[in-house]
Amino acid sequence: MNSQAAALKPVAAVSERDMANAIRALAMDSVQKANSGHPGMPMGMADVATVLFGRFINIDPSAPNWPDRDRFVLSAGHGSMLQYALHYLLGYEDMPIEQLQRFRQLGSRTAGHPEYGHALGIETTTGPLGQGISTAVGMALAERMLAARHGADLVDHFTYAIAGDGCLQEGISHEAIDLAGHLKLARLIVFWDDNAISIDGPTSLSTSMDQPARFEAAGWHVQSVDGHDTEAVAAAIESAQQSDRPSLIACRTVIGKGAPNLGGSEKTHGAPLGDAEIAATRENIGWACAPFEVPDDILFAWREIAERGQAARHAWEQRLAASPQREAFERAVAGALPDAVFEALGAFRKEHVEKATKVATRKASEMALAAINAATELTVGGSADLTHSNLTITKGMDRIAPGAYAGRYIHYGIREHGMAAAMNGIALHGGFVPYGGTFLCFADYARGAMRLSALMGQRVIYVMTHDSIGLGEDGPTHQPIEHLAMLRATPNLNVFRPADIIETAECWELALKSKNRPSVLVLSRQNLPMLRHTHSDENRSSQGAYILREPAGHRAVTLIATGSEVEIAVAAAERLEAEHGIAAAVVSMPCWELFEEQDASTRKAVLGSAPRIAVEAAARLGWDRWIGDTGVFVGMAGFGASAPAPDLYRHFDITPEAVAAAALKLII
Amino acid sequence: MNSQAAALKPVAAVSERDMANAIRALAMDSVQKANSGHPGMPMGMADVATVLFGRFINIDPSAPNWPDRDRFVLSAGHGSMLQYALHYLLGYEDMPIEQLQRFRQLGSRTAGHPEYGHALGIETTTGPLGQGISTAVGMALAERMLAARHGADLVDHFTYAIAGDGCLQEGISHEAIDLAGHLKLARLIVFWDDNAISIDGPTSLSTSMDQPARFEAAGWHVQSVDGHDTEAVAAAIESAQQSDRPSLIACRTVIGKGAPNLGGSEKTHGAPLGDAEIAATRENIGWACAPFEVPDDILFAWREIAERGQAARHAWEQRLAASPQREAFERAVAGALPDAVFEALGAFRKEHVEKATKVATRKASEMALAAINAATELTVGGSADLTHSNLTITKGMDRIAPGAYAGRYIHYGIREHGMAAAMNGIALHGGFVPYGGTFLCFADYARGAMRLSALMGQRVIYVMTHDSIGLGEDGPTHQPIEHLAMLRATPNLNVFRPADIIETAECWELALKSKNRPSVLVLSRQNLPMLRHTHSDENRSSQGAYILREPAGHRAVTLIATGSEVEIAVAAAERLEAEHGIAAAVVSMPCWELFEEQDASTRKAVLGSAPRIAVEAAARLGWDRWIGDTGVFVGMAGFGASAPAPDLYRHFDITPEAVAAAALKLII
Repeated sequence: MNSQAAALKPVAAVSERDMANAIRALAMDSVQKANSGHPGMPMGMADVATVLFGRFINIDPSAPNWPDRDRFVLSAGHGSMLQYALHYLLGYEDMPIEQLQRFRQLGSRTAGHPEYGHALGIETTTGPLGQGISTAVGMALAERMLAARHGADLVDHFTYAIAGDGCLQEGISHEAIDLAGHLKLARLIVFWDDNAISIDGPTSLSTSMDQPARFEAAGWHVQSVDGHDTEAVAAAIESAQQSDRPSLIACRTVIGKGAPNLGGSEKTHGAPLGDAEIAATRENIGWACAPFEVPDDILFAWREIAERGQAARHAWEQRLAASPQREAFERAVAGALPDAVFEALGAFRKEHVEKATKVATRKASEMALAAINAATELTVGGSADLTHSNLTITKGMDRIAPGAYAGRYIHYGIREHGMAAAMNGIALHGGFVPYGGTFLCFADYARGAMRLSALMGQRVIYVMTHDSIGLGEDGPTHQPIEHLAMLRATPNLNVFRPADIIETAECWELALKSKNRPSVLVLSRQNLPMLRHTHSDENRSSQGAYILREPAGHRAVTLIATGSEVEIAVAAAERLEAEHGIAAAVVSMPCWELFEEQDASTRKAVLGSAPRIAVEAAARLGWDRWIGDTGVFVGMAGFGASAPAPDLYRHFDITPEAVAAAALKLII
Repeated sequence: MNSQAAALKPVAAVSERDMANAIRALAMDSVQKANSGHPGMPMGMADVATVLFGRFINIDPSAPNWPDRDRFVLSAGHGSMLQYALHYLLGYEDMPIEQLQRFRQLGSRTAGHPEYGHALGIETTTGPLGQGISTAVGMALAERMLAARHGADLVDHFTYAIAGDGCLQEGISHEAIDLAGHLKLARLIVFWDDNAISIDGPTSLSTSMDQPARFEAAGWHVQSVDGHDTEAVAAAIESAQQSDRPSLIACRTVIGKGAPNLGGSEKTHGAPLGDAEIAATRENIGWACAPFEVPDDILFAWREIAERGQAARHAWEQRLAASPQREAFERAVAGALPDAVFEALGAFRKEHVEKATKVATRKASEMALAAINAATELTVGGSADLTHSNLTITKGMDRIAPGAYAGRYIHYGIREHGMAAAMNGIALHGGFVPYGGTFLCFADYARGAMRLSALMGQRVIYVMTHDSIGLGEDGPTHQPIEHLAMLRATPNLNVFRPADIIETAECWELALKSKNRPSVLVLSRQNLPMLRHTHSDENRSSQGAYILREPAGHRAVTLIATGSEVEIAVAAAERLEAEHGIAAAVVSMPCWELFEEQDASTRKAVLGSAPRIAVEAAARLGWDRWIGDTGVFVGMAGFGASAPAPDLYRHFDITPEAVAAAALKLII
């Protein structure tokens, strides 16, 4: 218990009702002061939260990152004041009352929605609806997987989430609950804040879903309780903890509970209650304190809770100290990949330079993964039902199955969004480096969760194959055009589009080393020749772009390309030289973001001062940055088409001939 | 019946089994010839399709766009050969056998997945899983809405869809079936191809969902049948047609049915069967013909089917001819907006120029919509549960409710993806111009369906408010950064970001007039001053960008901005002139796509030859196109933050002062 709490004295028996009212008061006062925010949800769920944190949850505010703590996810992230109020009441040292008074202000820890990394104890960023519950599925899965590896002595905790109607209406929730039910993630307990209100009004405006029946259909253990009946909530949590399936506890609540006039109305959802209603609420719930004041006895009761978690942590630390698993466990939780991984990748590059291996980069990725996965057990793979297209499984990877979590390959099902969110949860939980595959085009389906990977700075690796019209016959619905621009525009995300097997290994290395940034590996379906003919210990992809081919004479033109189009650029350069005596350099640019991070002189040295042509079988948007005012772009101007890949490259005029012709026009 | 069919003679009684085998043979032969494609699904669902098309569906291949035809959606779009085989067998004039022989080849109508517009009778583009079923929900809703307006004499048809496991695992399916169940769309009948196989193997690898129970929880009428028992399928369809709820018919099938060795295996899903297995299948199903040959009697039986639909169409045409609704119905189906809409918008602009109305562009949009919706009944609005934030409802719009379809406002629920797909379905069905709102950031959630709006060239209008850090306190999860780039990179999509109430009205006009292109209206939460002080009949936004402020002297710098940042650019220009005597032009650029379509001289005249600075509170990606090599970008370099909007603009240095300072640095 921290010193502030120790100084408090209990002056009277404190009821859970009083403890819950502290949340209500702090929530309504903070929202009022900010003149912005969502008081309804914290007030409605205050009783449930009080029972959960008061009687059950094992966390230690003085050691918020204790690896075996229970995880708590506020999926209904707009109710962030519930979390901040709890953190203040529980005594997190970075959450003094002043933070609540600065709710939603610049630089405060109390952002509009809970932001991972802004304050201790926030396990994940929420706000975009449905993400929290889906991330929680990943955490609950990671817990079982880590327990299977290191034993129940070290890993044995619950993951709790509070979800609202919005979370359960979003499609991602379907993907997540299906996966959780299938995998029997019994340590996942979700509270549904069933207040029958959404922003537009009663939920009956837009849904007639029988949520309990829906969760039962997904294989969940389902209970329904009055969310203001604390004994009923407690009994339901106990029962959920015993279940062999994930649990939904449907909590019938009143949104804005306590507010005498606005309680139960959508008006409490996303706006301050106003001074008059706040005064009436104080009266109604018997809360006599000034704003942001909590009576000592109530605060003491809250802070006392920490003792349970603290004791649990101490016991766990003793078990850890005595465990033969200690070292392996700590390495896993730290996410520390062994040097052997990078040594293996170095040897891999050397071997394949010598062999001049010609494979699709998706195949190169599989081969690199075989080396990686043999050198570490931290990597956990998967695919959204495209395993043998994405080539994400390697020899000896056992699959995760219901009740069997010792493997390291996850069949995520046809659920790109759920996969991305689950990977966020796995990464956030710790103990693993998750990667997962789908077609690049279906980054569209995963966007919501991919953005959170970037916002939270998580090492999640997306393996996205079939990366252009080069996939051929599946046609325009499957051919990415705008997706590279979409991903490149996303902050804090590295987008790698390697040109051959060597760059693929380099990009994998960079992705694995990016501990605070997600990566997307954008890979071809079609075979690509090896373009790097000499081995170097240096990872040339690490500066984002480099000169792959420097002509003997003074550069007349520079051809810049990524991925499968580097081959085309090289062929064009050879043609220009052979047929026209034109000195053409080729720049391979596997990662814009890393190139952007180079200093200006490095960038200038690579790009040169000759006219530039970019070649990429995708949308032009963004390329003007690299080709400049006089540059030419050879790529896609619209959607793709269905045909064999070579026909498409010819049809869309992305060929060595077209590039050479553009160069001639440009420089003559 | 077309002439080719009339020439055929029946030589024997033909069973449904034979008719289904024609589909199987054509599917396996076409995939084999293309050496690419998905034979398993067409072979598995051939019996269901034969019953559906043979006994029930009312379509007329000789009049494929007859407005009251039943709609058929192949949600499992990878099974495209099912659709192409049906189209050939039914006698669509643009689907001769040669098209099947050119399956998946450049320029053929038989693309890898069914592409809307490539062949007659393809009601929607499918392939990205879950889109078809969700689009079908929009079609079924449009049918009810159109019937409520024009009567059952003119509008009275079913919407049928075939969905696979993939469609039902994708999150969007949850949003769609919840909406359909809620709205009691009884004329929607979905067949689930329950073959228990997905690409990775048995579906038991990744799901344990009880799909029938799930659909029941969503309020659907559910039946389960053996999908190879044609009488059972027929009885189920009859029963579904009588239900007062949408229907799921779960059809237990064998993927690749008929193939003796590979049937029932994922190996039939996405690859040719191979010559040996095709020969064995021919033997097994008793199909003696050469590839692409169908016995005359079987072809005759198929072509005879058209008579039912043709008769239905003739009867309908007689009813239409006699109907007092005729003119209104035909106008609606043609999507022809009355001139009154554009006259109203013109008057609106004139009025507000005079009033110098200062409102948020989301509010301006609401005001423009009030004028639009008063002038036409074709527009149908909605929001993904952000009605009073997106400001998408106008006075007198009644809501669509279960069983009550006469209104014109749809509470889509917290379902951005489902909303977008439903709008695609409404637009494809015809009779309405759909628009729907969410926050710009949640374009992420709707991406899959928005891309299809663009690919299909549908007039779907997305109203996306809260378009930058200007939304303030909700913080980085809600603040779009990369979204403008993502949308601008998407082909065939107009992205409008108006700067004031006048541009907002202009952009609405352009969106409504874009009959073959979706539009996104990107709108501010915060108030913006009116910047256009003189009225002109010309729609200045129509060229995408225009000079808003031309200084008296020779331009020293050009400031380019969009939306809420145009105000900042204007203030910077005034400051530069007043404090430094620098002549600064301001270009407002509400639509990049339209500006890109101007000829080079127009673009040059607008952009000028002075150094340029772009101002946009979003990612830089794409702006180099307009600012050139020496240009400067003032905008966002990372994610946003939670704080009041003015604090954020200062924090991220997107202010008149910062722009003026950048200009001074650039030109001095």
